[in-house]
Amino acid sequence: MGKFHAILEAIRPLDRSKQAAIQHKLDFLTKPQGSLGRLEELALQYALIKGTLEPTLKNKLAVVMAADHGVAAEGVSAFPQEVTQQMVLNFLHGGAGINVLARHNEVEVAVVDIGVAADLKEHPNLLSRKVAKGTKNMAQGPAMTREQAIQAIEVGLGIVEGKKATGLDILATGEMGIANTSPSSAITAIITGRPVEFVTGRGTGIDDQALVHKTTVIEKAIVINHPSHEDALDTLAKVGGLEIAGLAGVMLAGAAHHIPVVVDGFISGAAALVACKLKPEVKDYLMAAHCSVEIGHKIILEHLGLKPLFNLNLRLGEGTGAVMGIGLVEAGVKILTQMASFETAAVSQAAS
Amino acid sequence: MGKFHAILEAIRPLDRSKQAAIQHKLDFLTKPQGSLGRLEELALQYALIKGTLEPTLKNKLAVVMAADHGVAAEGVSAFPQEVTQQMVLNFLHGGAGINVLARHNEVEVAVVDIGVAADLKEHPNLLSRKVAKGTKNMAQGPAMTREQAIQAIEVGLGIVEGKKATGLDILATGEMGIANTSPSSAITAIITGRPVEFVTGRGTGIDDQALVHKTTVIEKAIVINHPSHEDALDTLAKVGGLEIAGLAGVMLAGAAHHIPVVVDGFISGAAALVACKLKPEVKDYLMAAHCSVEIGHKIILEHLGLKPLFNLNLRLGEGTGAVMGIGLVEAGVKILTQMASFETAAVSQAAS
Repeated sequence: MGKFHAILEAIRPLDRSKQAAIQHKLDFLTKPQGSLGRLEELALQYALIKGTLEPTLKNKLAVVMAADHGVAAEGVSAFPQEVTQQMVLNFLHGGAGINVLARHNEVEVAVVDIGVAADLKEHPNLLSRKVAKGTKNMAQGPAMTREQAIQAIEVGLGIVEGKKATGLDILATGEMGIANTSPSSAITAIITGRPVEFVTGRGTGIDDQALVHKTTVIEKAIVINHPSHEDALDTLAKVGGLEIAGLAGVMLAGAAHHIPVVVDGFISGAAALVACKLKPEVKDYLMAAHCSVEIGHKIILEHLGLKPLFNLNLRLGEGTGAVMGIGLVEAGVKILTQMASFETAAVSQAAS
Repeated sequence: MGKFHAILEAIRPLDRSKQAAIQHKLDFLTKPQGSLGRLEELALQYALIKGTLEPTLKNKLAVVMAADHGVAAEGVSAFPQEVTQQMVLNFLHGGAGINVLARHNEVEVAVVDIGVAADLKEHPNLLSRKVAKGTKNMAQGPAMTREQAIQAIEVGLGIVEGKKATGLDILATGEMGIANTSPSSAITAIITGRPVEFVTGRGTGIDDQALVHKTTVIEKAIVINHPSHEDALDTLAKVGGLEIAGLAGVMLAGAAHHIPVVVDGFISGAAALVACKLKPEVKDYLMAAHCSVEIGHKIILEHLGLKPLFNLNLRLGEGTGAVMGIGLVEAGVKILTQMASFETAAVSQAAS
């Protein structure tokens, strides 16, 4: 049995045996019950995943997967394909949005070349795990083989398992890949059963005419490849992307190893659809950061039953929303572990 | 002319002369234009208030005003009045929600006794600025005199001006005061013109019957005192609270001294209504953190044209939402000042 199948076997439903004890602790902190709302929910979920009333949160990692897409040749993006590799260099030099926001939240960034369509120079901060120099054009045939999709998922597993050895408490997902909203829309349409036009947006900023063209290209890719909506691996291979597969692997590994995963925007959301289709129990280990401007993201969040934390109108990707989300999870964990109780602080409780 | 009138005179409309330059800088950072959404809006507002393309954000202060309310005698709160002073001690010992979340966001907390109905022991971290031992019961007559309201506003001014001397870049507002959602609902009803029942919620957690009673008490307070909706000082004095007045003072001082103020929940929102009614230009210096579960808060935000940043279902007060909001403002400022541009990072731009 390969790594991919082994990790699916290793994922267990969330152990809720400590839920009552964690909730009791939250309820007797010096505040009206439930008055810290979603921060308390995040604390509960985090503590359940860790299986303790006194969880710690120190080692924070954003995994940013970069890959190219054959479908870029169809003119579906506002930016040229070379931007993928240019932005990888920007990540390595610390000048991108994800770098700034990761530093703000004290999150380490792992930059992964899982499928950039260029030979990138070695760099001490670059994890070179190239499965292929980009996918093939899904509008003309399958983007990947099934074996490539599994290989890319296993890249995600390997990165999480490697970091786990030196301590890893929480993960954020991020990506870079010109044209990658197109495969994300295709995956979303297939797994949620919604029409392509309802899950296709402007990506980095295309105009009305280009949006119609993009929608047509995605519909064509689905017709040509007829992916099975019951077989997430088939969908992923035929109309997905290498970074999407890698991020699905990160989520599977997070669930298997009890490491919560904060999911970024639309592309990460498409990876979450795949991971949860492969193993529905993964969902209990995921947290949604924000709801992207990209219209398909709301449909993904509803489909998975995840509630966004921010109203920030983000649509950058890279993991920018997810690292901000880690900041909120951390706040929730500190509420659980650092606040005084009514008893220790000698504060009177509400009349019952 | 007293301090109160002098500060109103000192407030100027936001200087927008650098807006085009700041927006240009944001637009040429290595991301699709506008793709960091509200974080970019926060960065723009902060930079405009500071009047520079390279703003810094280091000295962060949450002003937490504590006071009691005569109207507590009407049984409008789920908690007994003694909780106000108990929670002040909890703030001083660092065990409350505001302490935990302020530490998380590296925000200093100033705990102010502006009107607690008890003699509090001296404490190195307590600012003793008591105007009165709580307000009078507004259901039987005016909560304060006009002079007391001005005095409480000037407490807020004094705290900001005192801290400004040693460096102060941004403010958050917070409060503690058993029964203080009742005066906040009264102020909101009067200034926004909405019926009391539309702006009155469960506070720390009263049941249906108590909510009906609370609404009746607030309506009675308005009928008895007939505050003028055109004269915010009259409204504040007759149906307000000392901490609400103090926070209005913090907002006026922030606007006058170009220090952005992140406004917390419903009670802070009522203070914002007063401050903006006194001087509409204050609004440009305010940022909303979250939208509270307390129903009147949404009406306040709409009335002021402020958009919340979080979906966190908070209803604790204390400044908990506001210090989390400071974390987002800081993220926005770092985007503006730390990200690489297309030019410096040699990244290709979108086809125009």
